[in-house]
Amino acid sequence: MSSISASVLVGPKELILETRTLPDPLPNECQVAVRATTLCGSDLHYYNHFANGDFKVRESLSLGHESAGEVVAVGSAVTDLKVGDRVALEVGISCLECDMCRRGKYNLCQRMQFRSSAKSFPHFQGTLQERINHPASLCHKIPSSISYDAAALIEPLSVAIHASRRSGVNPGDKVLVFGAGAVGLFCAAMAAVSGASTIAIADISPGRVDFAVKNGFATHGYVVPLGPRPTTTEDKLKSARVTADAITSIKMSEDEDETLESFDVAFECTGVESCIQASIYAAKAGGKVMFVGMGSPVQTLHVGAAMTREVDLLGVFRYANVYPTAIALLRQGKIPAFESLVTHKFSGLQNAAAAFEVAGKTSDENGNLVIKTVINT
Amino acid sequence: MSSISASVLVGPKELILETRTLPDPLPNECQVAVRATTLCGSDLHYYNHFANGDFKVRESLSLGHESAGEVVAVGSAVTDLKVGDRVALEVGISCLECDMCRRGKYNLCQRMQFRSSAKSFPHFQGTLQERINHPASLCHKIPSSISYDAAALIEPLSVAIHASRRSGVNPGDKVLVFGAGAVGLFCAAMAAVSGASTIAIADISPGRVDFAVKNGFATHGYVVPLGPRPTTTEDKLKSARVTADAITSIKMSEDEDETLESFDVAFECTGVESCIQASIYAAKAGGKVMFVGMGSPVQTLHVGAAMTREVDLLGVFRYANVYPTAIALLRQGKIPAFESLVTHKFSGLQNAAAAFEVAGKTSDENGNLVIKTVINT
Amino acid sequence: MSSISASVLVGPKELILETRTLPDPLPNECQVAVRATTLCGSDLHYYNHFANGDFKVRESLSLGHESAGEVVAVGSAVTDLKVGDRVALEVGISCLECDMCRRGKYNLCQRMQFRSSAKSFPHFQGTLQERINHPASLCHKIPSSISYDAAALIEPLSVAIHASRRSGVNPGDKVLVFGAGAVGLFCAAMAAVSGASTIAIADISPGRVDFAVKNGFATHGYVVPLGPRPTTTEDKLKSARVTADAITSIKMSEDEDETLESFDVAFECTGVESCIQASIYAAKAGGKVMFVGMGSPVQTLHVGAAMTREVDLLGVFRYANVYPTAIALLRQGKIPAFESLVTHKFSGLQNAAAAFEVAGKTSDENGNLVIKTVINT
Amino acid sequence: MSSISASVLVGPKELILETRTLPDPLPNECQVAVRATTLCGSDLHYYNHFANGDFKVRESLSLGHESAGEVVAVGSAVTDLKVGDRVALEVGISCLECDMCRRGKYNLCQRMQFRSSAKSFPHFQGTLQERINHPASLCHKIPSSISYDAAALIEPLSVAIHASRRSGVNPGDKVLVFGAGAVGLFCAAMAAVSGASTIAIADISPGRVDFAVKNGFATHGYVVPLGPRPTTTEDKLKSARVTADAITSIKMSEDEDETLESFDVAFECTGVESCIQASIYAAKAGGKVMFVGMGSPVQTLHVGAAMTREVDLLGVFRYANVYPTAIALLRQGKIPAFESLVTHKFSGLQNAAAAFEVAGKTSDENGNLVIKTVINT
Repeated sequence: MSSISASVLVGPKELILETRTLPDPLPNECQVAVRATTLCGSDLHYYNHFANGDFKVRESLSLGHESAGEVVAVGSAVTDLKVGDRVALEVGISCLECDMCRRGKYNLCQRMQFRSSAKSFPHFQGTLQERINHPASLCHKIPSSISYDAAALIEPLSVAIHASRRSGVNPGDKVLVFGAGAVGLFCAAMAAVSGASTIAIADISPGRVDFAVKNGFATHGYVVPLGPRPTTTEDKLKSARVTADAITSIKMSEDEDETLESFDVAFECTGVESCIQASIYAAKAGGKVMFVGMGSPVQTLHVGAAMTREVDLLGVFRYANVYPTAIALLRQGKIPAFESLVTHKFSGLQNAAAAFEVAGKTSDENGNLVIKTVINT
Repeated sequence: MSSISASVLVGPKELILETRTLPDPLPNECQVAVRATTLCGSDLHYYNHFANGDFKVRESLSLGHESAGEVVAVGSAVTDLKVGDRVALEVGISCLECDMCRRGKYNLCQRMQFRSSAKSFPHFQGTLQERINHPASLCHKIPSSISYDAAALIEPLSVAIHASRRSGVNPGDKVLVFGAGAVGLFCAAMAAVSGASTIAIADISPGRVDFAVKNGFATHGYVVPLGPRPTTTEDKLKSARVTADAITSIKMSEDEDETLESFDVAFECTGVESCIQASIYAAKAGGKVMFVGMGSPVQTLHVGAAMTREVDLLGVFRYANVYPTAIALLRQGKIPAFESLVTHKFSGLQNAAAAFEVAGKTSDENGNLVIKTVINT
Repeated sequence: MSSISASVLVGPKELILETRTLPDPLPNECQVAVRATTLCGSDLHYYNHFANGDFKVRESLSLGHESAGEVVAVGSAVTDLKVGDRVALEVGISCLECDMCRRGKYNLCQRMQFRSSAKSFPHFQGTLQERINHPASLCHKIPSSISYDAAALIEPLSVAIHASRRSGVNPGDKVLVFGAGAVGLFCAAMAAVSGASTIAIADISPGRVDFAVKNGFATHGYVVPLGPRPTTTEDKLKSARVTADAITSIKMSEDEDETLESFDVAFECTGVESCIQASIYAAKAGGKVMFVGMGSPVQTLHVGAAMTREVDLLGVFRYANVYPTAIALLRQGKIPAFESLVTHKFSGLQNAAAAFEVAGKTSDENGNLVIKTVINT
Repeated sequence: MSSISASVLVGPKELILETRTLPDPLPNECQVAVRATTLCGSDLHYYNHFANGDFKVRESLSLGHESAGEVVAVGSAVTDLKVGDRVALEVGISCLECDMCRRGKYNLCQRMQFRSSAKSFPHFQGTLQERINHPASLCHKIPSSISYDAAALIEPLSVAIHASRRSGVNPGDKVLVFGAGAVGLFCAAMAAVSGASTIAIADISPGRVDFAVKNGFATHGYVVPLGPRPTTTEDKLKSARVTADAITSIKMSEDEDETLESFDVAFECTGVESCIQASIYAAKAGGKVMFVGMGSPVQTLHVGAAMTREVDLLGVFRYANVYPTAIALLRQGKIPAFESLVTHKFSGLQNAAAAFEVAGKTSDENGNLVIKTVINT
């Protein structure tokens, strides 16, 4: 049993430091000193609204679930890890015994507990704490060549790995990504890792599209023009068609007449209806649209355009069995610009609020792009 | 070159007999005397409206594409078939050379020609003719144990085989089918052939549900109650939820408390928005909804209910590589009540109009259920 | 804590009754009164040799791992089961936390503990005991329509379900099974459940082949003739070719000229080199040979005949995630002659030795076929 | 009709220039001026022995089937290509209509015709000719960024793409390749393209292993020591175990204790029994061994080591549907050192014999490694 410092949310935008008592680790747990936590959109929802959708915060809640740290103590049954090991934390704890867990789809376990979430009560506390106890089997050892910041980023990368696996991207495929935030960039990166040769990325932010192409995440970029929003379903569909046509008409290269044409897989990372629809239009017959971004749950779509061309619509919910994959990829440098996503760094839990303020913006006070903010401890 | 009689559509509900000239078969073709053609919904659209959706009839058109017959002549290069062979006709002719054809997905070939369709001009004529010439590789030999009527039904069965393959139904799975028409019944049958142990079928027609259960196509039936139609999206979703809950709450058997609960695969064969939505709600996490029925192309759906539970939404467009499968199944009697779907029989092309009139109804003048109507020649 | 009676092996063919102390179930365990145990080949090896291959018995060992019973007590954390529930026992306990377990392939868990095995020490005791404590998550509830004998048979059926899954048998496929013992019969049954339309079974025993065909496990049978054993590799390969040719030349039916020809999947359930080789020869290009039976580990095979035709060679080791499937299939009667495999029944642990004596024969003293022997308690 | 010059084999090591008459292209053919042909092992067999295994040359035979060229005339029905287009030639012509072709596995078509092969008579002539007529659908257009030499190499790359697809290599996987010739190097390259993070390559030639690692085809290399050949099966298996242990014990990096351990996929490109066996031993449970290299067809293997750990043994025969993939990969530079495999270049058909002499060696007169020899025309 020991005392730790924790950053906890006690109201909208009210983050305070709290001293908590941490029990010794259970036999199958490690105690981990948290070294890096990158901030995520769901953390931001809690920070701004003291709620995330339907989940309202009902007790002080530590945020943070993209995280890595150092093992400082191990439970009596832990054999694979020792004090001093550096670990990436997989923060969803599934039951291991239900049908979904046994079949390897533990992301769909109905008893899943996920850190920094107010879904259940008492809340499952996040990683913005000095130390936490965590199941040893979910503390993934990283080699010295992977930094703590990179290890924290494995969590959002995990969503992309899972999406990529479900999509079955193949070598030589053409891939479209809507949304050039962290998850979109990682979906593009995983498409490249999986052998996709043409990767187009689309976003409303010219800065993000530029970042994606310059850092090698995508081979082609498209800035979705912001205009007057169509209001009727018919106009919305027309607008989505225009976007899809614009993207499929991009030239393969300066010197060639050949255009990108339709895509084997589209990763939709915005959750925006018009982007979903454009993804469907831009996918080739027999292709796939991956629903990665969560937007409004009810959508009016030209479902026929998917169904009669056998364009599969596949959702992505978190991830399973991806941490070893992520570590293997990072250790060999398979994602060259991986850490470039960390655009802003803060040190110490006492600066959590400042970090959240920056994380909520698309560019900082100097006009620099904000993609990922990390808090080091 | 020879003279044949053909039933041709010359206006809405105007079927006449026409004498046509039939050339000798090309080297790779068979000439087939058509023996049985069962009528399909798309034929009925042409019959009633002289159009099928956007495809308007612009010259006299023979209907019919679910068909079987007897080989009466073979082209010079045909080696696998001989005069007298009985064959089921696969009536979609793909290009064989495009990427989709080469990859085994010839149902998605953009140059596909399909019989009894006004999509292209000149129209590709249907099978309600005395004889037709057809590529030998699409004339599938049937053994004497399979009747011509059964062989004609292979065409709608093919859609179900293709849907079933894409769904990956596994032994022991629970399957839900919306729509107890021919395609729905065949989807149920293919689920059973694939090992599904629990098969629930839902339809607004008590007669059809009853037929499905009594003939062993489904283990459980549900009659969707007809009430006042909800008008708001919210009410529509609520209504779909009620339907899904009613079906998942059906008892596994009289003696047990256990209910059907959610389904591994739902085959949606109606194209109706509320049934699609109920299918999504009734599918289990990690399950699949197969879009088999074509309805309104634009749909407002609670996409979130599919995506966050990784319920895949997969469309089905015709079929590829299924005729040999169908013949193998029928030869061994794997679909016991297969021919029971032919509820009404007509003889001679001169009775085609009478056949179409019956085919357009759900029950005949004696109150008997109409499922499939055949024209024998 | 309570006293139970157990049948234990203390030497070759030396089974005695022993009184043991049984602790109360752990929080996540059930205590189960064993009602039926069917005997397996590995049990017989222990019985006859006091060893199974390299695993020598080093302390008194209860045999039996195909088993079902009644819940008589539940641990404090058990919520899904209650006293009186009837359960089939899945007797392999995997670690749940390793990579293989997490990925749904727990049959490959290196820390797997399996009942009635001397692999580890202390030995993991089998089910030929009055009562045992077992993890609740591996006690699969069965409905009243499934007998205890049938529930015990789920264990060998499980191997066949797993083999069938890995093989990807599809509706309409042609399947060959070598070996008409329990596992071979179940492989045939699962092929039928999965939609295979033609199922040929081959064995050296005319009685077993006859049993398989008469009870509907196979559509075609072949008795492998016993002749002088070939000694050179060349002669062995020739002999295997002769066997394969004989099977592929069987007529599809009396009335037809068509023969079975080559097979989509061959389930090799004998482990005999000549049968493995004949399976390879009899498989079609792009087909699969499933290695289900364990024989001599070192084999001389015409590997080229598999490789250049892309005939996949896939091994099968136990099973994972199959009990719910088996129960769903049995509840709906998808394997009609399932219980016909229990040819001999014994009552009471004191008759275990008698049961083993019969189980070791291929036919009993009255000349009746011995397939499966059950001990009821 | 026109006159062309052709290099033809008329006896062992007897290549002469012959003038042939070339008809105009058929409606669906292109006439292609051959620009580059790289030499393959099967060409070398014909060159050295006037036969390739059982296929004896019975008329003058042009060798060469790894080839690219320029379209100089097109048949009347060709719409996708025009004079001046640069194309890679896919030289296996399948029937398009059989079951295998229709299902997308045209590499298994029994009527496949393959260039530079004496399998059928008249022989299907190879590409070492001035011009050839070839089906337009098998002339794959390449952009200007891909050289003719690179386009010729697509043929051996195709085998690797097909092997890689069948293996299902995933991001983060560990892959082992036996054999560092062209096909082995390409298998390694395709593993990397597919996301494999650790790629070990083993060969008896230190030069080849060195080449593979230095050019980035593999992350780790292993030189198989040449010692006295074991003669008994037992000693052979022991030796294979030693090799497997040596490879799995290689350190992941200088700084770490972690070793490579077992592999998700092993590509066996030698056809040598001891390498096949070492591949099986080195594969992890649930892994795959791909049989890419053709060796002695009859092999004595410890099959049990594969089967009880569910290590799948999968053969690879040529390829299907890979040319568009290859072109997409090369256009984007996904295989960095691709053309480095062309170590020796010859110009003009009259130098074919000189090219074959070099191609038959592992190093040239200057001691430089020979991997691929090209003949430009």
